[in-house]
Amino acid sequence: MSKPTPISGFPEWTPAQRMIEQFVLDRIRSTFEVYGFAPLETRAVEPLDQLLRKGETSKEVYVIRRLQGDPEGPTGDDALGLHFDLTVPFARYVLENAGRLSFPFRRYQIQKVWRGERPQEGRYREFVQADIDIVDRDDLATHHEAEMPLVVGDALRSLPIPPVRVQVNNRKICEGFYRGVGLTDPEAVLRAVDKLDKIGPAGVAQLLADSAGASEGQAKACLALAEISAPDASFADAVRALGVNDPLLDEGVEELVRVVETAAAYAPGLCVADLRIARGLDYYTGTVYETQLLGYERFGSICSGGRYDNLASAGSVRFPGVGISIGVTRLLGLLFGAGALSVSREVPTCVLVAVANEELRAASDSVAVALRSRGIPTEVSPSAAKFGKQIRYAQRRGIPYVWFPGVGGAPDEVKDIRSGEQMAAASGEWTPPRADLRPLVS
Amino acid sequence: MSKPTPISGFPEWTPAQRMIEQFVLDRIRSTFEVYGFAPLETRAVEPLDQLLRKGETSKEVYVIRRLQGDPEGPTGDDALGLHFDLTVPFARYVLENAGRLSFPFRRYQIQKVWRGERPQEGRYREFVQADIDIVDRDDLATHHEAEMPLVVGDALRSLPIPPVRVQVNNRKICEGFYRGVGLTDPEAVLRAVDKLDKIGPAGVAQLLADSAGASEGQAKACLALAEISAPDASFADAVRALGVNDPLLDEGVEELVRVVETAAAYAPGLCVADLRIARGLDYYTGTVYETQLLGYERFGSICSGGRYDNLASAGSVRFPGVGISIGVTRLLGLLFGAGALSVSREVPTCVLVAVANEELRAASDSVAVALRSRGIPTEVSPSAAKFGKQIRYAQRRGIPYVWFPGVGGAPDEVKDIRSGEQMAAASGEWTPPRADLRPLVS
Repeated sequence: MSKPTPISGFPEWTPAQRMIEQFVLDRIRSTFEVYGFAPLETRAVEPLDQLLRKGETSKEVYVIRRLQGDPEGPTGDDALGLHFDLTVPFARYVLENAGRLSFPFRRYQIQKVWRGERPQEGRYREFVQADIDIVDRDDLATHHEAEMPLVVGDALRSLPIPPVRVQVNNRKICEGFYRGVGLTDPEAVLRAVDKLDKIGPAGVAQLLADSAGASEGQAKACLALAEISAPDASFADAVRALGVNDPLLDEGVEELVRVVETAAAYAPGLCVADLRIARGLDYYTGTVYETQLLGYERFGSICSGGRYDNLASAGSVRFPGVGISIGVTRLLGLLFGAGALSVSREVPTCVLVAVANEELRAASDSVAVALRSRGIPTEVSPSAAKFGKQIRYAQRRGIPYVWFPGVGGAPDEVKDIRSGEQMAAASGEWTPPRADLRPLVS
Repeated sequence: MSKPTPISGFPEWTPAQRMIEQFVLDRIRSTFEVYGFAPLETRAVEPLDQLLRKGETSKEVYVIRRLQGDPEGPTGDDALGLHFDLTVPFARYVLENAGRLSFPFRRYQIQKVWRGERPQEGRYREFVQADIDIVDRDDLATHHEAEMPLVVGDALRSLPIPPVRVQVNNRKICEGFYRGVGLTDPEAVLRAVDKLDKIGPAGVAQLLADSAGASEGQAKACLALAEISAPDASFADAVRALGVNDPLLDEGVEELVRVVETAAAYAPGLCVADLRIARGLDYYTGTVYETQLLGYERFGSICSGGRYDNLASAGSVRFPGVGISIGVTRLLGLLFGAGALSVSREVPTCVLVAVANEELRAASDSVAVALRSRGIPTEVSPSAAKFGKQIRYAQRRGIPYVWFPGVGGAPDEVKDIRSGEQMAAASGEWTPPRADLRPLVS
């Protein structure tokens, strides 16, 4: 067999990096749970018509089929694809199980998703997302929209990463404003404004003229709206100063004021109202979120979401929702790439028990049993090589302690191989310093 | 949108069941780490030729392709499939990263896998496996084969499930024995003996005659070997009593004696030598494991594995390994089906903070902030409905406490809605009994 090579877009971490990822996922999950979100996992596949039903055929969906299946047959398998986010499957889950769920339903979901995108820096074909959503039946109270950034703010603050800034906008502001200036295709306007970072104001103005039929004045107004950004409710004055009137615009401003004011009260500096945020052409209908990792702004949002009123409905029953999603793989990819995260050792092991010779392996095994029973991660040396070699086994992996079982009635001894300090110890009593028990992420 | 329906073979748990699954996965992971196994995740896809290279085209592999991809083009995507286990990807990972890994390499891996099997009870198309493996370069010490059942024995004992019995055999015993009685196609014999549970001794004898050219005496000997089972090294006497001599047989017996004797020393009753265990036609070359959940034997093995010497090799470098895999989804499916696992509530929330009216929501939010900062999972009531309705919100989800912020200088009060007991409490100090902090799985 020849040496295998990586597959572009399908990242694999080293064990040390995976340890960091687990630490990150544990912290995120713990924050989600302290806010009372219940865990959920959905299957990796959805019917293809579900995945494509928002008409976004540009989504690069992966289709699956059984290798042994009859490619012509109506097995149904041919109509399955891998989910590209966790919101569409969640909306489907809510519809399917509505009778068994209690509403409003708060759930978190941490899973891999797949997109057949062209791989590039920060873009993956397989990646982990950590989502929270709240859905209710018929109506969803707007205060939930203010809660989302607080939860992810807490989750991200619990990690050894740079601070973040959540940029919040509201689709109603954009749509109401565009309508208020006389533009009739808000989606086309949104799509053009969404390119502001890429093609600049002049490019957007041109695109607005071409694709949305905007006059110079209309384009200028749309660009002026997109320029507005403020860490507090003062953004509302800036919007009003543009002199556009529309009831949907007013509704959106009021909702956004609530989000930024709540955030300012509980997490000062976390949120800004940023009226250029559009979230592409997703299913959002109100508040939308993006998140910059400070110092890594140019890599795009690491945490996005918004309110969706029309994603889950069956007949006359509607399940409006709001959610936000941390792009865990993107976040880790950025920080690993910058060498900004490290772990104190590459195995969970705290103690390596040395083996004097193979006949005495059982004595070493017994030490390990005693240490493990008290929660101390322990390995027994795989070979009875010279002690120097066994110590190097520990050193190479960053294992801090090597344990030497006493021979012929002598007491056991444990050596801190970083300091070289060695002392008598009993396997039923010795405990490492708390900081050494688990690998430390920093 | 019409009501979606489940997809056969792709199970989805309720939030309460997912909470139980997480509890189970946390316990398993914690046991793996206390034995010093490092975490690893591999991508969900492998090149199709890798997945099929053991020639087992009967494996029902799922192939993936990009919906937008050129079906004719040499994109490489058409040659990818979803992994059907975690051992084949791990062997590939070891080869790909051999230069960066320290050997022997101990890793655990907990991930979903996919198989396009015909769905039936206890068989899924998407399921979670929890694997440990140890690989070394060139040679792998046999004591690792005795370690595997001890690790999973500890992991499974840490769960509120019935006891398990690990059945151990060794391929060398079978192959050496078959050779010793003069049969030349050990794979054909294994395949026939593997059907013992399904078609009985007479059926196996017939199959042995048809597919392996076995005489009546040879078939009888093979069946006599398969009948041997013992919780200790006495199985070896039973094998010798059959009077067959072969060096590979002797080697296998010696290895199996070590596994059952080590298990008997550290985990009495956990392991039995059971010489009918064959593990189909997998890649195993020595020790093989299957595991029965007592009381659920007829559903098959919930934890299987073995030693493989030839799965990972590049040129003259070989990486022999041994591993074992807990079928988490199968285990949970059985126990959920039998109603044998439950959780004390269906959300992580310990406290619901009531909201007297929407103008006072900020006061309730502040209580939640104080409780969460001390790790107490807390929700704020989504609506300022009558308190009776807010209490029912908690009751429906099993949330044990409802908190009433004091109005007009009155102290806050907290009510245990199970007992009805209500008392004054300060959000910066009150702590629930330890047993109420997290949902309990039993």
